[in-house]
Amino acid sequence: MTAAPLQNDRFLRALLKQPVDKTPVWLMRQAGRYLPEYRETRKKAGDFLSLCKNADLACEVTLQPLERFPLDAAILFSDILTIPDAMGLGLYFAEGEGPRFKKPIRCAKDVEQLIIPDVEVELGYVMNAVRVIRRELNGRVPLIGFTGSPWTLATYMVEGRGSSTYANVKGMMYEQPALMHQLLKKTTDVVVDYLNAQIAAGAQTVMVFDTWGGVLTPRDYKEYSLQYMTDIVSRLNTDTPEGKVPVILFTKGGAQWLPEMAESGCDALGLDWTVDIGKVRKQVGDKVALQGNMDPCMLYAGPDRIQQEVRTILDAYGSGSGHVFNLGHGIHPQINPEHVAAMVEEVHRHSAKIHAKADV
Amino acid sequence: MTAAPLQNDRFLRALLKQPVDKTPVWLMRQAGRYLPEYRETRKKAGDFLSLCKNADLACEVTLQPLERFPLDAAILFSDILTIPDAMGLGLYFAEGEGPRFKKPIRCAKDVEQLIIPDVEVELGYVMNAVRVIRRELNGRVPLIGFTGSPWTLATYMVEGRGSSTYANVKGMMYEQPALMHQLLKKTTDVVVDYLNAQIAAGAQTVMVFDTWGGVLTPRDYKEYSLQYMTDIVSRLNTDTPEGKVPVILFTKGGAQWLPEMAESGCDALGLDWTVDIGKVRKQVGDKVALQGNMDPCMLYAGPDRIQQEVRTILDAYGSGSGHVFNLGHGIHPQINPEHVAAMVEEVHRHSAKIHAKADV
Repeated sequence: MTAAPLQNDRFLRALLKQPVDKTPVWLMRQAGRYLPEYRETRKKAGDFLSLCKNADLACEVTLQPLERFPLDAAILFSDILTIPDAMGLGLYFAEGEGPRFKKPIRCAKDVEQLIIPDVEVELGYVMNAVRVIRRELNGRVPLIGFTGSPWTLATYMVEGRGSSTYANVKGMMYEQPALMHQLLKKTTDVVVDYLNAQIAAGAQTVMVFDTWGGVLTPRDYKEYSLQYMTDIVSRLNTDTPEGKVPVILFTKGGAQWLPEMAESGCDALGLDWTVDIGKVRKQVGDKVALQGNMDPCMLYAGPDRIQQEVRTILDAYGSGSGHVFNLGHGIHPQINPEHVAAMVEEVHRHSAKIHAKADV
Repeated sequence: MTAAPLQNDRFLRALLKQPVDKTPVWLMRQAGRYLPEYRETRKKAGDFLSLCKNADLACEVTLQPLERFPLDAAILFSDILTIPDAMGLGLYFAEGEGPRFKKPIRCAKDVEQLIIPDVEVELGYVMNAVRVIRRELNGRVPLIGFTGSPWTLATYMVEGRGSSTYANVKGMMYEQPALMHQLLKKTTDVVVDYLNAQIAAGAQTVMVFDTWGGVLTPRDYKEYSLQYMTDIVSRLNTDTPEGKVPVILFTKGGAQWLPEMAESGCDALGLDWTVDIGKVRKQVGDKVALQGNMDPCMLYAGPDRIQQEVRTILDAYGSGSGHVFNLGHGIHPQINPEHVAAMVEEVHRHSAKIHAKADV
């Protein structure tokens, strides 16, 4: 199958620091509960996992935000925990609570018994979704594939659920470092296969979500999280017939380690809202593009205040390419979609002026 | 009343960067649920608030960790939410859940109606506890008083409880900045009275806990948190007949802003575990002492691993005074007290060697 030519390549150009007419924009969790049409599809699907596993419905929710807003990228509708599920831990979602695993990792035997899945089989539903979405997007905007980082996946695998203290996973890391590395190595191998399969299926950019790297000490961040993300970047098949597939790394709470992250070989860094994007650009902007970084809570304010913040962030980044506008973390379910519209509009409107000036 | 002379002033000396024989050590939440004797006293008191309000029982739990471990400071047993309670919000603790307020702040009228308490009356139980503890400590180690930062208190006052998203308080900050400043100013005034009353009652050091400053953008951190903490530092009566009362500021997740915090006029900065204390010393060590910064989760590991980490942190700080050893946040209720003993022992043992060398 030949893919339809890309009609809007602003997102890919910005990630590769090529000139753009406007700063591209998308939102983490843009296909989500803040959209009434998402809630309808979700109801049709039953539970969250069934929605992820049904390629047609996953495609439907992936495209929903694009119908509402002139976003510059689509992101595969899925969950980072599909990998531990395929490795045999038994993912389920308790109603009204977060994700849970039936068989969390607690000892060496648990790590040994982990399944190394054939991602095209056990995670074939994800690749199907990628293919269906690419077909339905029909070249409108690029499609982003993604994974959790090995460390972030390990926190869920060892805790068996979300955690606020990381007692079990850190206990294992501190007391049994060799076992933790064994777990991270196995997970890294699966992540590499998983992202390469997504790229082969049509993902035009991939993003690694290291949601919990920021809970580590600087030494441990490098040893238990960044080391494995760097390994992943080096093993991805990013040169495709369609062109180069950019890789984005995002460690929430990783402000201090951005210079080290920029050395990983990735193309772009995701930024949460606790950093000044202008200062980060001065630190690492010659190496990588930057994606971010509006506080998701700003969307609780009214359109005027939102648009003011959009301008502040665009101006802080300044002229020239290399910026993808986004929130610093996922959009909250309570947000009014009209506020998102105001944000997206202002990103394009204000950045067009910045890029026009830069061209003169 | 003349206070008994201080038998162990290591903690105060380190905060003022005067020479010490050993690095002083205490733990955030050292009087807490990980100690069986605390759980006994807590049972006697009934609920948590009754324990805070009973000076004799508050004194009892304050002294309990000193009976077990050779700690170099005691900290007043209380809660940061006593201030919003005294301002009329109605603090209560739902069993098995966190703190709640009956009347959270949601609009201008709520802020106007806030009570400015006479801290010697409405918070007299805290000053009583300080006096009783000082009497019972009898000069053994110094007593630390404390408060929440205005921003951190405001998060609870507006949310009405703990929050993971800060939707309400940030919504107010972004949409109604003048109202948020009004709330923070009122709270700051009460915090100043409260800490000055603690100092008058006998607190020999005071610490400001800015637990949620790290969820802000850099601009907003300066405007909504650091500005008010700086104001507080400038208004404290720290010159007492007993000597200078050092002030410690601690913003959890504030790694990026330590240089700005060091300009606040405080004597020491608390550090969480996401920073390398040696690097921080190079940044700000000529201005302030540093307190921290072992990951509280390290105490889940065994004694050998704990002691190795203690040495790593002490060595990272290096020779010379200005370091108070602590965890990077409060100790968890599940921790084995024997692991705390191993930590405290190694801080004193290893640091004695460092300080002996430095004297040569």
